[in-house]
Amino acid sequence: MSYQILTIDNLQSYIFSIPQIKEYLGDGDITISEIGDGNLNFVYIVTNTTNQKSLIVKQAVPYLRIAGEGFPLSKDRMNYEIRALQFYSQIVPNLVPKIYYADEEMSLVVMQNLSEHIIMRKGLIDRVIYPDFAEHISTFLARTLFFSSSLYLNSSDKRALIDRFNSNRELCKLTEDFVFTFAYMQNDTNDINPDLISEAEEFFSQNDFKKNLLKLKYIFMTQTDALLHGDLHTGSIMLNQKETYVIDPEFAFVGPFGFDIGALIANLINSYISHFYRSQDREYQQWILDTIQEIYAKFESKFLNLWSQYSNSALLTEGFISQKELDEFKSEFMQNIFRQSVGFAGAKIARRVFGIAGVEDIRAIEDKTKRKEAEMMALEIGKRLILNYENINSVDELFELL
Amino acid sequence: MSYQILTIDNLQSYIFSIPQIKEYLGDGDITISEIGDGNLNFVYIVTNTTNQKSLIVKQAVPYLRIAGEGFPLSKDRMNYEIRALQFYSQIVPNLVPKIYYADEEMSLVVMQNLSEHIIMRKGLIDRVIYPDFAEHISTFLARTLFFSSSLYLNSSDKRALIDRFNSNRELCKLTEDFVFTFAYMQNDTNDINPDLISEAEEFFSQNDFKKNLLKLKYIFMTQTDALLHGDLHTGSIMLNQKETYVIDPEFAFVGPFGFDIGALIANLINSYISHFYRSQDREYQQWILDTIQEIYAKFESKFLNLWSQYSNSALLTEGFISQKELDEFKSEFMQNIFRQSVGFAGAKIARRVFGIAGVEDIRAIEDKTKRKEAEMMALEIGKRLILNYENINSVDELFELL
Repeated sequence: MSYQILTIDNLQSYIFSIPQIKEYLGDGDITISEIGDGNLNFVYIVTNTTNQKSLIVKQAVPYLRIAGEGFPLSKDRMNYEIRALQFYSQIVPNLVPKIYYADEEMSLVVMQNLSEHIIMRKGLIDRVIYPDFAEHISTFLARTLFFSSSLYLNSSDKRALIDRFNSNRELCKLTEDFVFTFAYMQNDTNDINPDLISEAEEFFSQNDFKKNLLKLKYIFMTQTDALLHGDLHTGSIMLNQKETYVIDPEFAFVGPFGFDIGALIANLINSYISHFYRSQDREYQQWILDTIQEIYAKFESKFLNLWSQYSNSALLTEGFISQKELDEFKSEFMQNIFRQSVGFAGAKIARRVFGIAGVEDIRAIEDKTKRKEAEMMALEIGKRLILNYENINSVDELFELL
Repeated sequence: MSYQILTIDNLQSYIFSIPQIKEYLGDGDITISEIGDGNLNFVYIVTNTTNQKSLIVKQAVPYLRIAGEGFPLSKDRMNYEIRALQFYSQIVPNLVPKIYYADEEMSLVVMQNLSEHIIMRKGLIDRVIYPDFAEHISTFLARTLFFSSSLYLNSSDKRALIDRFNSNRELCKLTEDFVFTFAYMQNDTNDINPDLISEAEEFFSQNDFKKNLLKLKYIFMTQTDALLHGDLHTGSIMLNQKETYVIDPEFAFVGPFGFDIGALIANLINSYISHFYRSQDREYQQWILDTIQEIYAKFESKFLNLWSQYSNSALLTEGFISQKELDEFKSEFMQNIFRQSVGFAGAKIARRVFGIAGVEDIRAIEDKTKRKEAEMMALEIGKRLILNYENINSVDELFELL
């Protein structure tokens, strides 16, 4: 149907007009409530209180939800979220919510309600250990990146994939501005801790790392390696001890391999930093570092294992190159992915300090002095990663910079 | 109008149904002749013998013209040629033929007849010196690459540009196969000089340079720097002593900066090699080397000059970085363009030896021994450029490899 904004009042009649949703929910008393924590979209939980079946309805509106109608943002962003979820449901069906219904015209998706899972950022703040997280997320990274790359797809299918995501212009631009640019200079969109005004000025005047930041931004804008989630922070992950789900891929586009990996590492490092000031729980901090180590090692081995199974792709033609030279090529290729991941992680960490979107892990530290120290540490670590990313060869070398 | 294949019989009534063409040609006796030298398309010259006005009609058919209907190739390729010519006519109006009419539905373009110009490859074989060529083609390269890049366009316009060319899949695939793959391995499409059968086998078994060739192929497939002509060899240039025109951009797509530059350098080096065996004209060979030197120096200075005029783009935001760091960034950026150009030049030279599409400069050498020696020299030089491209810093260092 043509686009109309749904509200609590007309949502029920709309979703019950969709046969598979009517069938899924079944007969009974229906309650609908809005989840208020989305920045961009309206999200509702619909529950049949008679049989306890429930689902999520997410709809994009033609403006930024938290900012209101004065901040227009194309609702087409939902198209990319739907398309990414459809790709993920083929490639990593157990690591994304089930999609019950999607309608690009309506900028709407109806999906599984993850009622037994919490947002990972909150779990990390509460020092919850997730023993299987590294295993799950490394599978997510390896499979989604490999199967959308020129190492698996043929040339024509790769360009078709780019076609489906290339127009996600507004959200790519948000990343270009807010991750790579504005948080490093005087800009009205920044949200600077009043206790760090002079530190911010000093930071903005530093230029030694900005050359590398420009390189990373250029790679982000022009390197079409694979389909990215585009915003893979710990707020885009819902999990419990047994299951992990990646949500909210509205920033999806075809970009550099290292960006999702870097985003994830960055958010784990932010949590690591926060616990120097939140909990002083060294054991939990060590679990975070071990998790980063395990994620990367497992990502690399799973990615290479998939690659070894396909000898024909857009890039490779069987018989073209000897195994020895191919292995060398792969080894340099993976090293490059790692280095870029470190660089992107640095940008993702540093931009959280003065930029528009801080992270709760650090910004919500109540003690002002501790918050300030945590922010200065994040800034310093982010900068080091950006400065050194081209020369880092292993997770151990990355940890030396922390 | 909807697509129909034009022939000598129905061409006249078709083009006279287009008001601006009817007006351009005027009244008089019309003759139409087919130019038989296109590989892909049908090309006709239409002349009014009364007033001597003439024009070119070029139409794509849904197959490869030289191979016939048994080799299907989407006629949509003409869309990309039309779009590239339209971009060029804005950015370098004096360096491309004037477009009188274009119709994507009909896969057809009507354009200026360059009757006073010859294909550059023929001029080079005949040892013609073109004193202004380096000046013209460096302007073409600098302006077309800069104005279609993220150094000039904003983020959204850059993605819109990619949209317009991303579906040129078949022709990109031809380059991936024939420039980067098949000419370096046993493949049915190869066209191997019977005198070089054992040398070809020996060459195909070498692997030392293939790792770099894969890197270059990967860059070609995934780096979206700027709008490329995509096939900028000396057969795609028509010129005389005063004017230079670039034609046939049907391979146009958004790809790496170095590819057009590399293609041009490769074809000049092929001519340089051929004259060791064709003319032994050392003075002409020196003119070729001087021309390469001048093209690159002028390209770089014009490109940097354009860049200095725009401080806001998809990449740059005024006030983000100091001039000193920005200059360092630009310097590394240009060095990277040069290195990739050298690598692409190597691939373009070497693939001409055993691959499907040889160059007349070398393949048409009549003396069998000389042809063989020229081919072996091209192979060796191509390989050296591929092997060393990441460490070459200047045109002088490139010449040391010749």
